[in-house]
Amino acid sequence: MSSQQLAIIAGVGSGTGASLARRFASKYTVILLARKPSSYQPVEKEINENGGKAHGISTDISNPESVKAAFEEILTKFPNASVQTAIFNASGMFVRKPLLDITMEDMDAGLGVSVRGALLFAQTVLPLLLNCPPSHQIPPSLFFTGSTAAIKANPTSAVMCVPRHGLRALAISAAKEFGPKGVHVVHVIVDGAIDTPWGQPFLRDKPLEERIDPEGIAQMYWDLHLQGRRGFTFEVDVRGMGERW
Amino acid sequence: MSSQQLAIIAGVGSGTGASLARRFASKYTVILLARKPSSYQPVEKEINENGGKAHGISTDISNPESVKAAFEEILTKFPNASVQTAIFNASGMFVRKPLLDITMEDMDAGLGVSVRGALLFAQTVLPLLLNCPPSHQIPPSLFFTGSTAAIKANPTSAVMCVPRHGLRALAISAAKEFGPKGVHVVHVIVDGAIDTPWGQPFLRDKPLEERIDPEGIAQMYWDLHLQGRRGFTFEVDVRGMGERW
Amino acid sequence: MSSQQLAIIAGVGSGTGASLARRFASKYTVILLARKPSSYQPVEKEINENGGKAHGISTDISNPESVKAAFEEILTKFPNASVQTAIFNASGMFVRKPLLDITMEDMDAGLGVSVRGALLFAQTVLPLLLNCPPSHQIPPSLFFTGSTAAIKANPTSAVMCVPRHGLRALAISAAKEFGPKGVHVVHVIVDGAIDTPWGQPFLRDKPLEERIDPEGIAQMYWDLHLQGRRGFTFEVDVRGMGERW
Amino acid sequence: MSSQQLAIIAGVGSGTGASLARRFASKYTVILLARKPSSYQPVEKEINENGGKAHGISTDISNPESVKAAFEEILTKFPNASVQTAIFNASGMFVRKPLLDITMEDMDAGLGVSVRGALLFAQTVLPLLLNCPPSHQIPPSLFFTGSTAAIKANPTSAVMCVPRHGLRALAISAAKEFGPKGVHVVHVIVDGAIDTPWGQPFLRDKPLEERIDPEGIAQMYWDLHLQGRRGFTFEVDVRGMGERW
Repeated sequence: MSSQQLAIIAGVGSGTGASLARRFASKYTVILLARKPSSYQPVEKEINENGGKAHGISTDISNPESVKAAFEEILTKFPNASVQTAIFNASGMFVRKPLLDITMEDMDAGLGVSVRGALLFAQTVLPLLLNCPPSHQIPPSLFFTGSTAAIKANPTSAVMCVPRHGLRALAISAAKEFGPKGVHVVHVIVDGAIDTPWGQPFLRDKPLEERIDPEGIAQMYWDLHLQGRRGFTFEVDVRGMGERW
Repeated sequence: MSSQQLAIIAGVGSGTGASLARRFASKYTVILLARKPSSYQPVEKEINENGGKAHGISTDISNPESVKAAFEEILTKFPNASVQTAIFNASGMFVRKPLLDITMEDMDAGLGVSVRGALLFAQTVLPLLLNCPPSHQIPPSLFFTGSTAAIKANPTSAVMCVPRHGLRALAISAAKEFGPKGVHVVHVIVDGAIDTPWGQPFLRDKPLEERIDPEGIAQMYWDLHLQGRRGFTFEVDVRGMGERW
Repeated sequence: MSSQQLAIIAGVGSGTGASLARRFASKYTVILLARKPSSYQPVEKEINENGGKAHGISTDISNPESVKAAFEEILTKFPNASVQTAIFNASGMFVRKPLLDITMEDMDAGLGVSVRGALLFAQTVLPLLLNCPPSHQIPPSLFFTGSTAAIKANPTSAVMCVPRHGLRALAISAAKEFGPKGVHVVHVIVDGAIDTPWGQPFLRDKPLEERIDPEGIAQMYWDLHLQGRRGFTFEVDVRGMGERW
Repeated sequence: MSSQQLAIIAGVGSGTGASLARRFASKYTVILLARKPSSYQPVEKEINENGGKAHGISTDISNPESVKAAFEEILTKFPNASVQTAIFNASGMFVRKPLLDITMEDMDAGLGVSVRGALLFAQTVLPLLLNCPPSHQIPPSLFFTGSTAAIKANPTSAVMCVPRHGLRALAISAAKEFGPKGVHVVHVIVDGAIDTPWGQPFLRDKPLEERIDPEGIAQMYWDLHLQGRRGFTFEVDVRGMGERW
């Protein structure tokens, strides 16, 4: 279809990424990027079986060749499509460690996804977003999923807060450069524990109302995606009602 | 009606307040507070003529007796209603002045609305919001309209930035105290010139895309009002795509 | 003496204000402003007995007439003096209270000192600081003593954080307006409990190393006062080594 | 000498690093780390000729082996010395570039110094600082030289602001973890152009008073180094009096 519209989501597992995929599939063909097929296949299948369109691609977001190959596949498979939104939702495995115990591998792993991966993703999708035909009413958007570690640094959390601070700086810089060109860039600060299937063991002692609902997060991205050019939100936070912050 | 649901908006003129009134009137009976009837009457009339329900009350938000009288009128007129949301959208007339030219009256005027008024309003509506029956799916919410002056202070802008910084501190403190009690408190940073009827003389040289659309702002408040207890946003900014920030 | 140099300190009791008075008395004639003579008299006496020069004036810093009278006394008593530095160290009595228990008197008391008082003080001393002869090597400076409540708002702390946020906004605005005119404006964030005589009952359980040393604070003001025009610090924080922040 | 006290400075050229070396050489033996001998040799020579003690070591601060070798040389040459302060003053070559023109090499170069280098340096010196005998009156300190790019992100500045945001997060995390252990960690925000020999071509049009004096910066580090355990400053900014911020 010449008028096919895409939403590209990097970092799709069973949590926020899956909720984002479902939400944006209500209007767009969703492209799901994750390292392992097992991460995106369940939600890809679910969307395609429910009348939506989803297409997963195994991608290492911190690897230039892998990202390049993924986007070549997208452009080949959807040659006339416009990219309406792109969501960077990938994240490394963050561990709490005393500063003296952090290895360079720990830090590089975090930076590899949150900084290098985010930069690669932004540089690859921005030309596509800039090309999004102005006839579409909704401005093209680029989201970065961040966290409280992006604005607050705590002891034993350098492996988390250094890459997240960097990601936020990248997002702000991109928002200021591409906002005036019509691309809506958003940084989302998720503050607290998200209620995901894989997070259940850690959430056991956490009252339900302090666990953030991934469907609610996805709805927020959607609402922000619909904002017009005369009212861009750059940054939002989201937390459970009982969260201490 | 015993199940009547109210949205109380303080600071309703021809700009954001009117847009908020229209947006929330799609579901709620809207109570419009402004000092002069001429401020709220046009939108009150418009809503009532279009099938919604609006009720305006002349209120000086910085005056305890006036605020008390307004809420007595609300409770008398809508005895069994629940207050679903309350929006503090009032603002003093801010002037740019060199620091040495600021009079105590200038500063008191700003503080009178943005701090004293906001405190009065919050203290009056919070008990009503806490009483909002849990049967309603949407958590009760309390919004404060702020601006970039809440987070950034510039030369010759003390009359603006001092009250707005104070308002933001009040909002954060309220959010942390009442979030765990189920009331969703939000601070909105409007960054830039809003495209209002009364603002036209100042906006002449400003490209349309740098003027913030008040309908878009109102939609954002609405979207945030709909957030569930497991995903409260505390703070958002909104600006035109061309805004320098 | 025609070349007499003054340091004017508003808010002098037994804590930081007294330490500041002692420190600045090493070079300047210190003018000590406090509401009650009993607040400034001990340190005034101590300085004068130890070879320094101190002059106390009973002043209600939130009252325009009182501030006017104090400065008339200063200019009468020290007609040819230059004002080298001015320190706003006054503070209201802050109480922790649930938001719904805060009275307008509570809030006005905080605003009266931290906003109105700070504005009055700044407007009165800035013309004197601007007049400070350029022959003196050290640029004139204006300090505002703030606290963590200036940048962080907590539940039940609105009486503290609203005025302190406002004070900080005033300080930033002043720094940006008067820095280019050669006046060095500084905002100091004191984070934690200061080890003062009157604070002992509250400090009992606090390890010594978490109590901030007022002499250390005073030394910091002094160091910053000595900064040249090509290296102004606007903001510093200070906390005990064990402070959680 | 068994009681020799060291100040280790990473990133010593003709600017701030040289000023820091001179200032700390007034009391300590200064160890100067820089990639190229030509960077540290002039100031090393100057200090040694003027009665101070300086020792330069060619070190690539982003390279673990190189850092390891440098500290082995320090410990061999000064076996009984205590490390009193360590200053991370290194910085990559930052270029302004549109986001789409940034290469991964650009970003890695910035991260390599400001994040990886800072982490390596911190991890290597912190055990030495923790070992600093408590008999010395001055608490051991660890400084990180940052910039406005650490707290503000601008368009076309991602190569600068991403690593600097990360560095600041690392510094905050370290300050909170090691402050309670007695190590004073400081992050310095240099806002503006420093008046260095190598910066002259860029500074030509900049009035003298907007160029930051490196001697003033060095004095500030020194003042902060002298702070006692009951009054640690974590963050300061410094800017010329005419700087817009």
